Amino acid sequence: MFVCINERPAGHPKGCCLEKGSAEIRSALKAELKKRGLATVVRANNSGCLDACAFGPSMVIYPEGIWYGGVRKEDVGEIVEQTILRGKVIPRLLIKDPAYAPAGLEFDPLDLN
Amino acid sequence: MFVCINERPAGHPKGCCLEKGSAEIRSALKAELKKRGLATVVRANNSGCLDACAFGPSMVIYPEGIWYGGVRKEDVGEIVEQTILRGKVIPRLLIKDPAYAPAGLEFDPLDLN
Repeated sequence: MFVCINERPAGHPKGCCLEKGSAEIRSALKAELKKRGLATVVRANNSGCLDACAFGPSMVIYPEGIWYGGVRKEDVGEIVEQTILRGKVIPRLLIKDPAYAPAGLEFDPLDLN
Repeated sequence: MFVCINERPAGHPKGCCLEKGSAEIRSALKAELKKRGLATVVRANNSGCLDACAFGPSMVIYPEGIWYGGVRKEDVGEIVEQTILRGKVIPRLLIKDPAYAPAGLEFDPLDLN
């Protein structure tokens, strides 16, 4: 799992994931994975800009290629429980742009809202 | 493509990818992708520790899950040409540990040396 922790100068028009709390989200993911004994299997890593600034805080789960945006710290338990443990995508968190659609999952953004 | 740019204090027993030149490798990858008009299709991103310190400088290409280690700046052209453009794994660069074997590619590390 790669969580964007890119930082841009304050006031940058694109904003950045870091100012939206992504470092805390990554820490929470790490802690949740550890709590569930998954820390050696799944890694909550940080990454540079994932080029999904407008949807931040953004993250991507590989190898599945599941892109989540607007992630809040409160979503972390559900992400680990549903997506990591059960292999289920959480429609609410998917980035609603076809460019970020998980491989093999063709979705109509309207269906998900 | 995620290139580990993790930095550890000088003298740390694990060493780190950054001190082995990973930031320059990432920059070279970025430039090579741009040169070939691939910059909007493939992203040379940086990441935190990929937990492959012993094999550094380390990188992983997703969604394929191709782990390369001991990458040198001189390998960058070949990585883009062979792996990104032609979809071919470069055996020499694969991390020779089954834990980092690309999904669907079962290899005998001995065969590759």
